[in-house]
Amino acid sequence: MDSALRIEDVRLTPILIKDPPLLNTQGVHQPLTPRLVVEVETRGGITGLGETYGDTAYLALARPLAAALPGRSVTDVNGLFRLAADVCGAAPAGVVDGRVDAGGLRGVRTAEKLRLSVVSAFETACLDALGRSLGVPVHALLGGRVREEVEYSAYLFFKWAAHPGAAPDAWGEALDPAGVVEQARRFEAAHGFGSFKLKGGVLAPEREAAAIRALAGEFPGRPLRLDPNGAWSVATALAVAAELGDLLEYLEDPVTGTPAMAEVAARTDVPLATNMCVTTFAEAPEAFARGAVRIVLCDHHYWGGLHRTRELAALCRTYGVGLSMHSNTHLGISLAAMTQVAATLPQLAHACDTHYPWQTDDVVTVPPRFRAGRLAVSDAPGLGVDLDRDRLADLHRRWLDDDGTLRDRDDAAALRRARPE
Amino acid sequence: MDSALRIEDVRLTPILIKDPPLLNTQGVHQPLTPRLVVEVETRGGITGLGETYGDTAYLALARPLAAALPGRSVTDVNGLFRLAADVCGAAPAGVVDGRVDAGGLRGVRTAEKLRLSVVSAFETACLDALGRSLGVPVHALLGGRVREEVEYSAYLFFKWAAHPGAAPDAWGEALDPAGVVEQARRFEAAHGFGSFKLKGGVLAPEREAAAIRALAGEFPGRPLRLDPNGAWSVATALAVAAELGDLLEYLEDPVTGTPAMAEVAARTDVPLATNMCVTTFAEAPEAFARGAVRIVLCDHHYWGGLHRTRELAALCRTYGVGLSMHSNTHLGISLAAMTQVAATLPQLAHACDTHYPWQTDDVVTVPPRFRAGRLAVSDAPGLGVDLDRDRLADLHRRWLDDDGTLRDRDDAAALRRARPE
Repeated sequence: MDSALRIEDVRLTPILIKDPPLLNTQGVHQPLTPRLVVEVETRGGITGLGETYGDTAYLALARPLAAALPGRSVTDVNGLFRLAADVCGAAPAGVVDGRVDAGGLRGVRTAEKLRLSVVSAFETACLDALGRSLGVPVHALLGGRVREEVEYSAYLFFKWAAHPGAAPDAWGEALDPAGVVEQARRFEAAHGFGSFKLKGGVLAPEREAAAIRALAGEFPGRPLRLDPNGAWSVATALAVAAELGDLLEYLEDPVTGTPAMAEVAARTDVPLATNMCVTTFAEAPEAFARGAVRIVLCDHHYWGGLHRTRELAALCRTYGVGLSMHSNTHLGISLAAMTQVAATLPQLAHACDTHYPWQTDDVVTVPPRFRAGRLAVSDAPGLGVDLDRDRLADLHRRWLDDDGTLRDRDDAAALRRARPE
Repeated sequence: MDSALRIEDVRLTPILIKDPPLLNTQGVHQPLTPRLVVEVETRGGITGLGETYGDTAYLALARPLAAALPGRSVTDVNGLFRLAADVCGAAPAGVVDGRVDAGGLRGVRTAEKLRLSVVSAFETACLDALGRSLGVPVHALLGGRVREEVEYSAYLFFKWAAHPGAAPDAWGEALDPAGVVEQARRFEAAHGFGSFKLKGGVLAPEREAAAIRALAGEFPGRPLRLDPNGAWSVATALAVAAELGDLLEYLEDPVTGTPAMAEVAARTDVPLATNMCVTTFAEAPEAFARGAVRIVLCDHHYWGGLHRTRELAALCRTYGVGLSMHSNTHLGISLAAMTQVAATLPQLAHACDTHYPWQTDDVVTVPPRFRAGRLAVSDAPGLGVDLDRDRLADLHRRWLDDDGTLRDRDDAAALRRARPE
């Protein structure tokens, strides 16, 4: 094969990006949160981009994988999984403890999930480099897009007006239904989003249900979702489901774990969605057999990349399970990757989640713009985004300057620091 | 996207190829069997190749699909399924009757399976054209190969020495264990195959078991498979499984249908494989839930192409089900496609089936050669095979000259003609 497609160099750049004081069941987003930018450069002088979690545990796995890549072809993405298993070794002690992830709210943390999240950034970067080298978009390397635009949902949060000791941000406070409605209005005005997701698990469940009712009053007929990240009991979940009923497009992870999700699912007609009890292929059979979920939220970071996301879609199609897309704090590289893969999935019938509008930092030269809540699917070579190296250097300097406090996302610790009581 | 990747023309060439008098539970292979060669030519002047079943029912679906393709991009293979559903219409009357397919022995015949088998040839041709246009092998469009060679199995048949009224072929008769062993020796000498599959369902089950024992005596320790195409009762299947036990790598479709397969599977340790009860994604959940099969034989013709084959592999991986590969009568285009996709599947742990050594006709310029039962995975652009247009024209002339008798494969009718008694 063309030696120009062989990998010459891999660069890893950990960065810290600004994040507003968004609240969830674990705590509050830190003022800065870590991400990792992966650059894969070919012998032909083409650079491909990837982005993933930047916490130290991910960095520790990414470094040996980056070191093992030179000489391999960017076409060889199926081989990344075996390579990662061979070279990454065990996850750093203490980060895989079987507890629910303290930052990402992505279900139970395991060594394999960490590794897949690292592989995903390298796979994306290889596909970007391959697409750029060949002059075709990434979606063409995934069988081609089946739509011209991908729809995203507004991602609403209860939030503080400001991080502790800092000036208020442009969004202001949202700690009640009226605040959430105001936030939704601004999201709609700025980006045209047609559906709304509210991150719950923060206030009392009845207050969160009231916020959904308020949204339904303001935006009649629009798809609405509520996601308490597994914070509720089965009884609470059933009570909220009974109260909100048809107002909800779906209820996301009302309770933790497949058995509890199955118990709720058996007693409500409200569709349950998840990005917590089905986050790996190994978790799917039990959840499907028990009817625990009607919709799985894919996420190429979790599942090991864009090809694996398509495989998840095929699995869901086979079992009659719906598909939506999850998002964690991310920048424009990941948004481009999400859009490319989402464009190839015929059965994606729900608007995708994205945190992107909350981010004021980015490392791409041309930030994407939502129109009517949608992003046009780029037909430019690769992912269709270019790296702003000056911005990358600035954000990396932040990471270098940090004393270690913010290099690992920990929403619970951030809350404890802010509100020791 | 590059307009050179848009489709300028599609050519369909039905052909008849020679086939030896191989026996199966339905009857005997006809002297000539139909195949369809699909050529997709781009505006850039690149031609991609595909091959599938050539029976009239498939042709009737392929023609409207071919007519709808010009102007579309060869990158757009995900869109072929929707396009086929839109333009192909219903299958011709009489060919979808819910009975087991009379020629292909591929489970129950449905309109969707016919359509997927047609789509597969167009998908393969598009991927070949895309790979050739971009200068990369098809496997690079599927995430890259994870091995340098793909192993195939010798495909042994009970057979007559000659078609009725014709001279004996080079292989001679094989109607007893000694004949099967002699055939296996010749396959091994010619191609180096290290494992052996015997098509059963022809003689009394105890004679077929005796043939397996004879093979085990001649080739101790080699993987052996027996495939009676669902011809047996549960009791017979269990008796054969008990008798052969560890001699079998797997027992393929001993009985018909998921319930019967599950009954057998529950009462033997011999792994059961299938290309009859799980031939579509829709059939998988019940078979997996009932533990009816331990190994699914993929086939890109059945499943709708190379991407769908990879999705099937992901499904099987998720459910802990093994993967092997099925073959029907085919030429070098399909063999190249089988090899390209097989090379990308990490968990393919069994040698693939192929009828190819039985075929004396082909339409590729350089027939592939097995070494130690393996084919090297081509890194040449596309599928790595070129069309011999003179041979294609010759084989098409055969199809034109046929009075219609052989344009549809029907092993049972062929047997009735040969042996009216």
